Amino acid sequence: MLSHKARYRVIYGDTDRMGYVYNSNYLRWFEIGRAELFRFLGLTYMEIETKGIFMPLSEVFCKFTTPVKYDDLILIDTTLDTTIRAGMKFDYRILSEDRHITHAKGYTKHACVDDNGRVVRPPEFLKEVIRKFDE
Amino acid sequence: MLSHKARYRVIYGDTDRMGYVYNSNYLRWFEIGRAELFRFLGLTYMEIETKGIFMPLSEVFCKFTTPVKYDDLILIDTTLDTTIRAGMKFDYRILSEDRHITHAKGYTKHACVDDNGRVVRPPEFLKEVIRKFDE
Amino acid sequence: MLSHKARYRVIYGDTDRMGYVYNSNYLRWFEIGRAELFRFLGLTYMEIETKGIFMPLSEVFCKFTTPVKYDDLILIDTTLDTTIRAGMKFDYRILSEDRHITHAKGYTKHACVDDNGRVVRPPEFLKEVIRKFDE
Amino acid sequence: MLSHKARYRVIYGDTDRMGYVYNSNYLRWFEIGRAELFRFLGLTYMEIETKGIFMPLSEVFCKFTTPVKYDDLILIDTTLDTTIRAGMKFDYRILSEDRHITHAKGYTKHACVDDNGRVVRPPEFLKEVIRKFDE
Repeated sequence: MLSHKARYRVIYGDTDRMGYVYNSNYLRWFEIGRAELFRFLGLTYMEIETKGIFMPLSEVFCKFTTPVKYDDLILIDTTLDTTIRAGMKFDYRILSEDRHITHAKGYTKHACVDDNGRVVRPPEFLKEVIRKFDE
Repeated sequence: MLSHKARYRVIYGDTDRMGYVYNSNYLRWFEIGRAELFRFLGLTYMEIETKGIFMPLSEVFCKFTTPVKYDDLILIDTTLDTTIRAGMKFDYRILSEDRHITHAKGYTKHACVDDNGRVVRPPEFLKEVIRKFDE
Repeated sequence: MLSHKARYRVIYGDTDRMGYVYNSNYLRWFEIGRAELFRFLGLTYMEIETKGIFMPLSEVFCKFTTPVKYDDLILIDTTLDTTIRAGMKFDYRILSEDRHITHAKGYTKHACVDDNGRVVRPPEFLKEVIRKFDE
Repeated sequence: MLSHKARYRVIYGDTDRMGYVYNSNYLRWFEIGRAELFRFLGLTYMEIETKGIFMPLSEVFCKFTTPVKYDDLILIDTTLDTTIRAGMKFDYRILSEDRHITHAKGYTKHACVDDNGRVVRPPEFLKEVIRKFDE
């Protein structure tokens, strides 16, 4: 399956005065998750941009279940949804290090855009990489 | 209607190397939106916490339509969804200053929690404030 | 004097689990301060960049005296140091709304860089604006 | 020497529209640096707070030399300045992964504060840990 787990250590700057991680940081974690999934697939997001393809967010959803605390070590479990034809979709689970707690679940949808800002279909080099791992 | 528009000026620190505002900042704007809606209703979120009620996010959704750029002046249009019984829900629209562009739309759902972390029903003092404006 | 006061309302996302504003946010405030000073002078930083001049930070200093809390309304008091010849320097004071508390003091130094990334002298159009106000 | 190197991978959310890492993120890196130095010494900052000692920033300085780019892997080289008597001071160098480039240098000063917010001398358990490594 097109899935990868990245680790992240929570810092003071991620927390808020309620004592937990502030909500907007989960979107940063989603980025870490998909960037590390791409790296794991052998094609970094940096390289995708170098080839003239950009993938801005078109949609994000996140359900927060159990708060994350300062100094927690979390796993960002990212899965590429290969059923999507137009653009790309990633599913995320924020897990505790021992995987016993699911802190949050969510997804992001992305358009593929060329360097002129036009929406395009996911390019062949990207589909190639995905096919290779999906078998 | 329980609705309020707050203004925000985009800074360099909000943008990313694509030249637009980075996605996680929209969740900060949603916070500004509901905080200013509460202030407009005459009951700041600070006062709500002082009375022992906390409102952590349980869910967030955002659809990004048109990117926001550096130095743009945006309006955060926040509406309280008064049809919700358990917890609270806010709807947001991120608009250009002249209101001709809708940059993004989204919502947040919140649990009401007491100082022991237990989920409680929205307290009477909060419902009072809402009723007053909803008529 | 080349000085301007900008206002900022502290949000939850600015605070950390100590209950105060996290240190890195002061640098965002410094940016707000100098951007609003430029706007006040009639030449936005956006326009400066459009003319091909960029002003990346070369140095920052901040002394934190009294913590800033959630929902505080602060004043960012920014002064351009006109004694500097190469690059630019801004001095900042973070004040409480009533100006009775100085929360922090600091400065930033900036290089002037052209669109090829070369360090250049502050351009004439910038010196012109400064001269006009400095008299 | 009381020194430790932590690694950090730059994400999109760290960059700004100039294409480089936005300045306030260096202060987050400084936090990562000193937190990982404490962990390396066998006493996490979390444990220090559990023992009733807090270490808010009193001062920060940073000199930016070479910009850091998206997807760069940096080393945060943190050294405890053991010559300081009151409070604590850390020196930082932001290095490229291969250590050939010094991107930035800086320091932070911290007060030691008890749970009543009173400034205290660095506690014995902290000095003990430092002495052990400093020999």
